[in-house]
Amino acid sequence: MRSVFLALALASSAAAATPFSADTLSHAQSLRQHAMSSDHAFEVVESLTTEVGPRLAGSDGDARAVAWAKARFEAMGFDHVRLEPVTIPHWERGYADARVTLPFPQPLVITALGNSVGTPEGGIEAPIVRFATLADLEAADPAEVKGKLAFIDHRMERFKDGRGYGPVVKARGQGAVAAAKKGAAGLLLRSVSTSAHRFAHTGVMRYVDGVAKIPAVAISGPDADQLTRMLQRDPKIQVKLELEAMDHGETTSYNVIGEITGQSQPEEIVLIGAHLDSWDEGTGALDDGAGVGIVTAAAGHILALKQRPARTIRVVLYAAEEIGLIGAKAYRDAHQDTLAQHYVAAEADFGAGPIYRFDTRVNEQALPAMTALQQQLAPLGVERGHNQTWGGPDVSVLPPLGVPVAGLAMDGTDYFDYHHTPDDTLDKIRPEAIQQSAAVYTLFAWLMANAEAELRPIPMPQP
Amino acid sequence: MRSVFLALALASSAAAATPFSADTLSHAQSLRQHAMSSDHAFEVVESLTTEVGPRLAGSDGDARAVAWAKARFEAMGFDHVRLEPVTIPHWERGYADARVTLPFPQPLVITALGNSVGTPEGGIEAPIVRFATLADLEAADPAEVKGKLAFIDHRMERFKDGRGYGPVVKARGQGAVAAAKKGAAGLLLRSVSTSAHRFAHTGVMRYVDGVAKIPAVAISGPDADQLTRMLQRDPKIQVKLELEAMDHGETTSYNVIGEITGQSQPEEIVLIGAHLDSWDEGTGALDDGAGVGIVTAAAGHILALKQRPARTIRVVLYAAEEIGLIGAKAYRDAHQDTLAQHYVAAEADFGAGPIYRFDTRVNEQALPAMTALQQQLAPLGVERGHNQTWGGPDVSVLPPLGVPVAGLAMDGTDYFDYHHTPDDTLDKIRPEAIQQSAAVYTLFAWLMANAEAELRPIPMPQP
Repeated sequence: MRSVFLALALASSAAAATPFSADTLSHAQSLRQHAMSSDHAFEVVESLTTEVGPRLAGSDGDARAVAWAKARFEAMGFDHVRLEPVTIPHWERGYADARVTLPFPQPLVITALGNSVGTPEGGIEAPIVRFATLADLEAADPAEVKGKLAFIDHRMERFKDGRGYGPVVKARGQGAVAAAKKGAAGLLLRSVSTSAHRFAHTGVMRYVDGVAKIPAVAISGPDADQLTRMLQRDPKIQVKLELEAMDHGETTSYNVIGEITGQSQPEEIVLIGAHLDSWDEGTGALDDGAGVGIVTAAAGHILALKQRPARTIRVVLYAAEEIGLIGAKAYRDAHQDTLAQHYVAAEADFGAGPIYRFDTRVNEQALPAMTALQQQLAPLGVERGHNQTWGGPDVSVLPPLGVPVAGLAMDGTDYFDYHHTPDDTLDKIRPEAIQQSAAVYTLFAWLMANAEAELRPIPMPQP
Repeated sequence: MRSVFLALALASSAAAATPFSADTLSHAQSLRQHAMSSDHAFEVVESLTTEVGPRLAGSDGDARAVAWAKARFEAMGFDHVRLEPVTIPHWERGYADARVTLPFPQPLVITALGNSVGTPEGGIEAPIVRFATLADLEAADPAEVKGKLAFIDHRMERFKDGRGYGPVVKARGQGAVAAAKKGAAGLLLRSVSTSAHRFAHTGVMRYVDGVAKIPAVAISGPDADQLTRMLQRDPKIQVKLELEAMDHGETTSYNVIGEITGQSQPEEIVLIGAHLDSWDEGTGALDDGAGVGIVTAAAGHILALKQRPARTIRVVLYAAEEIGLIGAKAYRDAHQDTLAQHYVAAEADFGAGPIYRFDTRVNEQALPAMTALQQQLAPLGVERGHNQTWGGPDVSVLPPLGVPVAGLAMDGTDYFDYHHTPDDTLDKIRPEAIQQSAAVYTLFAWLMANAEAELRPIPMPQP
């Protein structure tokens, strides 16, 4: 008898901890089965990357992507579909060329960093000076840098969670300003990349008022190694750089929004997002066509249920993420009056998966509920993670205003092999990986939209 | 006693079969040890690819490569170093651009095929028509092809010995002529490639008299797949092509030759070759900087011996292989009077190795001697192969004139991932692989230069 009592006690304890009704869990099981036999997410990415392709914020491709997304959302049967305008800068890459001119003449594989100015007509030709890191450049004697092309050769490390990115990407954002402060003529950045292939990885860079705007380019990893070998032979390596890089001023893009209206608490929002824009050289399959496919398929799976969720599920395809989270900030500002009704937000923007960990930023009282949610994801291979996530680039602007977020961590081991290159194309997505990721988002959205748990107030780092 | 008699009989039989003196074998052992602890081959490729880089036949880089090779050979202490002039065409790639214009506008990753004409000013814009193979294009109704860009989408298969190349590369050489005969405006060739990355692979193509010269480009594998996906959605896919492609007429390059003069049979030649030219987009590390490193290091290891070989060892760095074996044919013609004294020839032109098999084309009487030679290579992992090799691209012109050849077969599993792309750079060479290959060539050259065996007349396929 003792064992029966124990079993009942455990069952009762488990039941007390769950924030989900039996009905919610029953639908979760159906959704898991449906999602794990669906190719909806892959099909969405295939459609976007084939029929639209590159969609740099402000470009014609961007406008076609918005039209594509609106039409697709409308065809899917969302309860509401709308476009929310976002004012964005329109930068265009144009022609770019770099070559070593002396003493070992040969072309380099480069790409302009996003937002870079062009070179004067005819280009600039100058010696290069190498720094292992941005910090080394910042510490340099200006006499060593003046008139030269500053070459930052910081190699990114490969990790499953992509944590090698942060320490290196700072040089992409701030390198040109640091170089210009020392009088440099331009910036050559070793690509923020884990790839062994000869692709240059673009990405956004910044200028600041009062510091000269100098052209900034990324060079491929093999080219960075080549320059280093040249410098070992001869400290005087001369490079010629020609960049067209056009600033077309401001234009309008759109956050594309699709909603499944909640049945009992429609004013409360479970936001799942991805960004619709991409860089211009690849077709943006991993970044972030995959995310678009994942959150779109998740909503599609839930729309296929006869039953609506308790809360509203809002899919947001953000505009202009790549050039500075511009759609995300516009969403935050446009929705400031209802941010308090945002129950939780999450974003898929780290490739196609699979998802291996469920992180959160919720009130500590809600942690048992989050564990209960993770237990529903466990059959898909998802572990419980930490409570310190920012939820992804675009949704990271929400926790500072009190919105709880979740991070569904994707295996990003290879992500930075393709990130921001011409090689970010559909063939890099494994159908079974994106299927699992879409299944996880499906369950996440469904369970959050039906959870009985208070996630606020959220913990924030002390200043 | 019986076992002692048997052992003596076997030893005697083995001694009778070996074409190598004890002294030759003793030196072979030293050479193997020396070569397997040397980085000479890698160091040669590093120097060539860094200090010269791309060296398309006829270009400034080609001229610098010739000067580099001559200086290096002279510094190494060859008994003779000389340049033999070769008249070659000088083609230059120039600007190249292609994009889908309708109905899914986006850029394509392409490269001009070597020898292609450019497009008229302003480019050409035409619908595409897809064929799975060259044979399908050749069988097509001209009405289906006229005025269009013929797209041959033949995917290469990956094999260790590279045998997937032959069935596909025919479309690169002959595709433009086949397309032009049907009235096509141009050729889009799926790259001859095993890569999953977005590189277009160049390579030489041919026109014939009496057939219109139309522009011919390779597109990357991912772009070929993209076009196929587009065609599944809409049969009318329009592409715009702009190629600069300049024909600069004839110029002079050089076969670079270094010799170790034979001690007792100096008039007999053991030729080990590689080609000095490369395509223009990569630094030609695998194709064929590696071969240059391998045969140069092999000679260097033998030069380090106090003893000279019986026969002359001649290292030939061929000019203009990529654009049609032009240096090879010039060598054959310039040396026709002494081809009968060419004991054997071999070429390293399939990457950096390792070498796994020793093939030959020698008289059947000499096969036991070849087995004895292979036994000296066996500690390096080299198996005995067949007797039907052509010895490599440049030396393949010699067997029709009676010259015995050997083929030291390299592991080419990944070779066509990089072949003729910007991604053919030094980092693709594993130092331990090229070290082994150089050790094999060292032993091969030394043993052939001292072998007591008649290799002629060689077997040839019946016409």
